[in-house]
Amino acid sequence: MSAIQKNVEASSASYSASFTKGDLALPPAKKYLVLTCMDARIDPAQAFGIELGDAHVIRNAGASAVDALRSIVISEQLLGTTEIVLVKHTGCGMLTFKNEDAYAIVEKNLGPAAVDELKAKNLDFLPFPELDEAVKKDVAYIQASKLVPDSVTLSGWVYEVETGKTRRVV
Amino acid sequence: MSAIQKNVEASSASYSASFTKGDLALPPAKKYLVLTCMDARIDPAQAFGIELGDAHVIRNAGASAVDALRSIVISEQLLGTTEIVLVKHTGCGMLTFKNEDAYAIVEKNLGPAAVDELKAKNLDFLPFPELDEAVKKDVAYIQASKLVPDSVTLSGWVYEVETGKTRRVV
Repeated sequence: MSAIQKNVEASSASYSASFTKGDLALPPAKKYLVLTCMDARIDPAQAFGIELGDAHVIRNAGASAVDALRSIVISEQLLGTTEIVLVKHTGCGMLTFKNEDAYAIVEKNLGPAAVDELKAKNLDFLPFPELDEAVKKDVAYIQASKLVPDSVTLSGWVYEVETGKTRRVV
Repeated sequence: MSAIQKNVEASSASYSASFTKGDLALPPAKKYLVLTCMDARIDPAQAFGIELGDAHVIRNAGASAVDALRSIVISEQLLGTTEIVLVKHTGCGMLTFKNEDAYAIVEKNLGPAAVDELKAKNLDFLPFPELDEAVKKDVAYIQASKLVPDSVTLSGWVYEVETGKTRRVV
């Protein structure tokens, strides 16, 4: 067992020992979802004030709305959420490369068969060159989708990994 | 401003007031990633023992490895993680419907134009009928991908929303 797997088991033992929230309902109590980045420096519950049971939390590389669409539709249409809080962040890795850079790294590290798989899956890494613009663009993408009704409340934010602050963009 | 947006602003003010982790590096310090569900009843940091800065956290509907592949490749190939902890959970919404049910709900709620968008985007909601099997299947999907080298350590788990425990499946 790896050190990380041991840590999961130890954390399970200590967390469950004082766990009292076993009766929460499946649909989020406060009917919202937070879409943010997978970045290791973000703790959404703490930074954005999410209580257990209150909100869906979707996380992917860059807080991409395009990538999250499947989860957003399930959250809205099957589980009744009516508000989306989209949060990208300063210092995001997605600001540092382009698709062709990522393809080149995959080819160097893993060889041509891996690149063939990227191409077969038509994989776009969805990097973005500018932070606030990317927040606006992703909020606009959700707004434009017929899969999210106009009644859903949207906002777009930037979390600052340097300060722990979250500021609104749109 | 909505009540949820006010809560983000208030949480930002209180969290940043005592924030001391502004110097963390971009790559995860413990070089691992956790892939889990967006479910509102999961707090990965607490339940799985993730310290700020230590791990990428990817979350989507059902903790789907297929859906997470883009983020996994970025984490492994661009940001140096070498271990994946995949955690699905009891009571998951993805156990409760089939693709055709979701398509029917979207059509009823949002009309034929929304279904056209689902079809144009070839959107598979990726539900699964059995929990432990789905964990094994998703770990096998990652193992089989040429985009994740054999040197990456993999494990698959189930978090119990009723007890707060996390048990290993594979």
